[in-house]
Amino acid sequence: MNLDRAIEISILFDFYKELLTEKQREVVNLYYNEDYSLGEISENLNISRQGVYDTLKRAEKILQEYEKKLQLVKKFNERNRWVEYIYKEIVDIKKDIKSSKDCSILVPKIENLEEICRELLG
Amino acid sequence: MNLDRAIEISILFDFYKELLTEKQREVVNLYYNEDYSLGEISENLNISRQGVYDTLKRAEKILQEYEKKLQLVKKFNERNRWVEYIYKEIVDIKKDIKSSKDCSILVPKIENLEEICRELLG
Repeated sequence: MNLDRAIEISILFDFYKELLTEKQREVVNLYYNEDYSLGEISENLNISRQGVYDTLKRAEKILQEYEKKLQLVKKFNERNRWVEYIYKEIVDIKKDIKSSKDCSILVPKIENLEEICRELLG
Repeated sequence: MNLDRAIEISILFDFYKELLTEKQREVVNLYYNEDYSLGEISENLNISRQGVYDTLKRAEKILQEYEKKLQLVKKFNERNRWVEYIYKEIVDIKKDIKSSKDCSILVPKIENLEEICRELLG
């Protein structure tokens, strides 16, 4: 299994699983989250191996089509990168406080964070 | 038109409009964003008033069903409230810097923000 693809499908599944049928959800979950093989899923769910494969491919396509339309994973990741940036800046500011007696050196960083939050809040 | 409902549909439309048909998108946009009446939409799109009404109701139902399943607006709003909180704290910290010579009073607030970002990043 291609790892990048596995991660991609697993994240899409997190966002959009409620839009799959119960059977599709079960197959995707066993394959991508529980690391079952097609053969093992086939035995467990009592579906042919080809049936498992078809269900998996169909479900993957549905997940990718929803993302293509809604781009929610993309938007979520973009926002997350900003939160990560804010986090790093805050850790930095804490260091500055500990190594300096002069608060005023913090002002540019604080104002930068203020601006980023305002942007995120639209 | 009920204002709360209009705002609700308008936000759902922002998130999920790509899942509607082009006709549904057009009707919802004219009614909720452009503030056209059913009669005006009927004239503009050359559909009966009843047809406009049915399209609108059907589209609203689809948007609400997607939100019921995915809860993306709800999750987005929850995250936004946290960004708002971070923003207010940062504005507060800026005030503190201006009114105090002692950086150390900022430490609890900075550590609180650090914790919140860590939570948001999961």
